Amino acid sequence: MIQRLCVIGVGLIGGSIACGTRAAGEVGSVVGVDADAANLRAALDSGVIDCAYDNVAEGAADCDLVVIATPVGAIESVLKALRPVWSDSAVYTDVGSTKGNVIAAAERVFGAVPPNFVPGHPIAGAERSGVGAAKRDLYAGKRVILTPLPETRPAAVDAVETLWRCLGARVSHMAPGHHDEVLAATSHLPHVLAFALTAMLGRKDEQDEIFQYAAGGFRDFTRIASSDPAMWRDICLANSGEIVALLELFRAHLEIVESHIKHRSADELFALFTEARDARQRFLDQLEK
Amino acid sequence: MIQRLCVIGVGLIGGSIACGTRAAGEVGSVVGVDADAANLRAALDSGVIDCAYDNVAEGAADCDLVVIATPVGAIESVLKALRPVWSDSAVYTDVGSTKGNVIAAAERVFGAVPPNFVPGHPIAGAERSGVGAAKRDLYAGKRVILTPLPETRPAAVDAVETLWRCLGARVSHMAPGHHDEVLAATSHLPHVLAFALTAMLGRKDEQDEIFQYAAGGFRDFTRIASSDPAMWRDICLANSGEIVALLELFRAHLEIVESHIKHRSADELFALFTEARDARQRFLDQLEK
Repeated sequence: MIQRLCVIGVGLIGGSIACGTRAAGEVGSVVGVDADAANLRAALDSGVIDCAYDNVAEGAADCDLVVIATPVGAIESVLKALRPVWSDSAVYTDVGSTKGNVIAAAERVFGAVPPNFVPGHPIAGAERSGVGAAKRDLYAGKRVILTPLPETRPAAVDAVETLWRCLGARVSHMAPGHHDEVLAATSHLPHVLAFALTAMLGRKDEQDEIFQYAAGGFRDFTRIASSDPAMWRDICLANSGEIVALLELFRAHLEIVESHIKHRSADELFALFTEARDARQRFLDQLEK
Repeated sequence: MIQRLCVIGVGLIGGSIACGTRAAGEVGSVVGVDADAANLRAALDSGVIDCAYDNVAEGAADCDLVVIATPVGAIESVLKALRPVWSDSAVYTDVGSTKGNVIAAAERVFGAVPPNFVPGHPIAGAERSGVGAAKRDLYAGKRVILTPLPETRPAAVDAVETLWRCLGARVSHMAPGHHDEVLAATSHLPHVLAFALTAMLGRKDEQDEIFQYAAGGFRDFTRIASSDPAMWRDICLANSGEIVALLELFRAHLEIVESHIKHRSADELFALFTEARDARQRFLDQLEK
């Protein structure tokens, strides 16, 4: 049981952690910290948090579990703000979509990653944001990846695992570099492609009015292009190495497909599209497990 | 009112035309033609069609409206089979996803496109196929593009428009070349990207087990990669010029995005992602109209 939980950044992700732990009866009180006064007020008014702070150090003091749920780009400044009140008896974690850069930020701020800081990433979210979108069952059945380092205290890892398990999530461990490689493939690259395609076609739409003839397939394919631009700018910068490597690979792959189409290589196209369909079925089979 | 409707290819698209016209009370009897005996039997048993033929010429004889609802790659051979029984008093149309190649096929078969042939394309469909997936309201509120030529008989165009309107569809006219350009952008390019990405990541999954960490965004983005490989091979070959041109444009566009990420151009990334999100909102606003 968590006595006093501090959630820094009370948006969809942080707000859902607050709601969920309370619904599970696993928390005494919840402290919310947010730079957005209106969002903080909404979190307090709706009972998602018990008390509200706009100051990180004041909010986190005397808490036994501190969750940094800000956008990736803000984590380093949050760690700096936490440093003066960092408590050896508390446990700290984050929910950033990239992990290598969070660990690098912790090293810059503390000299070495503190043994009671457990980097983590819940694979959940939506295009919606803000505490109004928070819900207690956001993490039910979802995956959470923790990327503890060799020097991370096992008791700290246990505390963070317990938090996620009480929210119904399935917890895995991974090396930080592997996390960033996997997520670049399954999340970051698809987002960049969706943003790039939608921007390109948006310009064509202005000229040729093409969107009125787009249908359900286009709606689903471009859904992630409605995601928060600031959040995705930060993720692209935080995991640039992996994303650039995959973009290069994908452009080369696309050039081959283009060549098949240009040279009317029917068998190669059929084989590639069949391979893709089978791969997606493998993904769907795992998603339902 | 159609006296005798012939649907050649009683799958999702053709079967839904048969169900929908019957439900609207706009058809006397429906003749179904299909090369797949099991599918044809299912269409007959479920009452989607009134009589069944495996031979195009026999099925289409004495019908006043003939809809070619086969895959794009089969349309030329269907036109060849229809030629000996082609009736000047009947109206013919198709539902192919590409139009330039259908018109070229008609020119090859007949010397010139017959004035009672109206090329068309309903923008509806799904990953599912076969008559079992057919439903009477598949076209309700959907767009249908007709691409009549200057020599197409106005009465023939009217008959095909009436068919689609009784199914609840919204009918537009377009030049065939413009149709193929628009659909390359909003449908063909997204499908090729989804197939290419899913195949590429499928190989990575076999090595690194990445799919188990993919979530809802990935599921939606790759949904169209579950589409029928043979159908999409045929579409890529039928509209290769437009698709290749857009693939080239997209690869160049992607190279710029890659360069922004590599050079940490935060403002450019934010502007591009914002442009994409705004463009998608324009698309959504139109979809709801």
